Amino acid sequence: MKFYLPTMVFQEKDAVRNHGEQMAHYGKKALIVTGRSSSKKNGALQDVIDSLEKFNTSYVVFDKVLENPGVGNIMEAAGLGRREGTDFVIGVGGGSPLDAAKAIALMIQNRDSTEEVLYQARDLRHLPVVAVPTTCGTGSEVTPYAVLTRDDLQTKQSISHTIFPALALVDGKYLEKAPLSVLVNTAVDALAHMLESYFHANATDYSRMLSQYAMEVWGVAADVLFGTEASEEDYARLMFASSLAGMAISQTGTSLPHGLSYYLTYHKGIPHGKAVGVFLAGYLDILPEEFEPQVIMALRTLGFGSIGQFAGLMKELLGSAELTGEEIEAMADGMAGNERKLAAVPFDVDRGQILKMVKSACAQP
Amino acid sequence: MKFYLPTMVFQEKDAVRNHGEQMAHYGKKALIVTGRSSSKKNGALQDVIDSLEKFNTSYVVFDKVLENPGVGNIMEAAGLGRREGTDFVIGVGGGSPLDAAKAIALMIQNRDSTEEVLYQARDLRHLPVVAVPTTCGTGSEVTPYAVLTRDDLQTKQSISHTIFPALALVDGKYLEKAPLSVLVNTAVDALAHMLESYFHANATDYSRMLSQYAMEVWGVAADVLFGTEASEEDYARLMFASSLAGMAISQTGTSLPHGLSYYLTYHKGIPHGKAVGVFLAGYLDILPEEFEPQVIMALRTLGFGSIGQFAGLMKELLGSAELTGEEIEAMADGMAGNERKLAAVPFDVDRGQILKMVKSACAQP
Repeated sequence: MKFYLPTMVFQEKDAVRNHGEQMAHYGKKALIVTGRSSSKKNGALQDVIDSLEKFNTSYVVFDKVLENPGVGNIMEAAGLGRREGTDFVIGVGGGSPLDAAKAIALMIQNRDSTEEVLYQARDLRHLPVVAVPTTCGTGSEVTPYAVLTRDDLQTKQSISHTIFPALALVDGKYLEKAPLSVLVNTAVDALAHMLESYFHANATDYSRMLSQYAMEVWGVAADVLFGTEASEEDYARLMFASSLAGMAISQTGTSLPHGLSYYLTYHKGIPHGKAVGVFLAGYLDILPEEFEPQVIMALRTLGFGSIGQFAGLMKELLGSAELTGEEIEAMADGMAGNERKLAAVPFDVDRGQILKMVKSACAQP
Repeated sequence: MKFYLPTMVFQEKDAVRNHGEQMAHYGKKALIVTGRSSSKKNGALQDVIDSLEKFNTSYVVFDKVLENPGVGNIMEAAGLGRREGTDFVIGVGGGSPLDAAKAIALMIQNRDSTEEVLYQARDLRHLPVVAVPTTCGTGSEVTPYAVLTRDDLQTKQSISHTIFPALALVDGKYLEKAPLSVLVNTAVDALAHMLESYFHANATDYSRMLSQYAMEVWGVAADVLFGTEASEEDYARLMFASSLAGMAISQTGTSLPHGLSYYLTYHKGIPHGKAVGVFLAGYLDILPEEFEPQVIMALRTLGFGSIGQFAGLMKELLGSAELTGEEIEAMADGMAGNERKLAAVPFDVDRGQILKMVKSACAQP
């Protein structure tokens, strides 16, 4: 079994301000990559800018990362980074800006290459990446993945290069300004990472240690998703659980719920967290009987009583997917033919089971 | 809180043979650093040599690492490495060769420097280090520490540079040829790492996750130390627990038992594992009352019932230290004046408590 996680992580209140010197040390001029507004509202962008200025490091801001960015969005940012002579990239925000930062760091370093290299299995260098997450789901700050929208394949897919951030600065305070819907959607993404990694063909003792601990931490703070007022500690826990879950999928990858979610996001515009969350109970449900003790352990650790109760609470939290019979069949066909994702499942899964999972994500017909 | 662990780890049967290509990729000519005999008996040295030859990588062997090596031993090996133009270092064996490999990698890279730089707080580069542990205690394959004997200070001390191995190849099979005394001494060192890291001023949620999981794994295999016949799985578990415990002290450092042990090893020639082990029950015993629930949890996880039972079993396993009244006082004085080690203790410890710990390590007077 393998364990690899080279990112230096600091999780604490004011992590960006406390570790500005470490952040600035990766280069002379940073390309800060973020979305249009949330990192301005929650203060993360200002924290990064203040820290860079304090340590006399230049920067330029690209604040046009889209949700589920495509290759065009990446190349636009990389063009700015190339023109401005930036030599490291700081991603600030949720999964979209963090994943984008990795792809952009690759494209700036390889300045004479075109976008085709993103999905080519080649050994390429990349600029150092610093990640500042402001949502509690992606875990991208400690994963080597960079999932982009691929219009050519009508889905989302991680680039072919594994790019771990050099530095992750993790601070729960950025969650304070997030709307409950964002908290829910991203915390459910982290939950999916824990469960998909724990019940994964590539799970190891190392990855299970991480996903199990993530479940413990997530379970303590989960009431927040159901409307309980959140404390500073709850935000820190949700953020910590998200990083731990990211570390877990760094070792294993994800499984069927993530695989199926890309259809919902690409074709139906459903946000990532909901798009994976609607499949979680169904995934646990199709696990063969020998997994039952582990499923019960996992659910209890998370604070749920049974698969049925868990399914009900997820529906309450996320609602269902609205899919036609045709779409349901298309999804089952697509996944049943996706050998890479099927290899992630820790048992022999057939099309009938996938169909059952997809149907379980829909409202009662 | 910080988490940093950049070493790529493979733990599995035949790890060295399975990952020869990764090992060979760190350079053109390796300096293999090992002790006089054990890595020949357990097959680790041959595995390394065969893997390098398979991938057309030159090497030279330095098989004269002493137990608790001093600076002279390091410089002798570094001299060979410099003359032979080696560009990476592979440590094979227990803690002594692995720690030595790190110091040697520093001294080969900085070829015009003298041994003084080992203990200077300077930012220096080092050759890549590959670590192949053959005992289940050091954890050095995943720590940045390199403890050497310092005759000038009459003690052991880690060098001033933090050097994580780039690659750790961990295989329980090398324990099969180890005498029971070596298994005991090294597994108790790992046990000390778990307990000292868990009850440490620098403990974080990350380090506690690692030390707690290490205790679970260690506890399952611990019967082996008391004479139960070991299975292949037991050896793998002891090796895994040792790596996990190493990861834990990578985040926190060690505490009083390690600090006190150096006196016993330097002045009394007591092997490292026993030298730390005799202080473990005493360390748990001086923890203030508020730690009691955690102490009980830790002992139960390890498979022990109480501090008293644990103390008895450790005495059965290791015996005691033979110390004069003068030596006992000298040790308490030394530690009570060691500010760096005192800062590792998660409460305000006084000389009286240290004296109690030292006395608890001795046979009844």
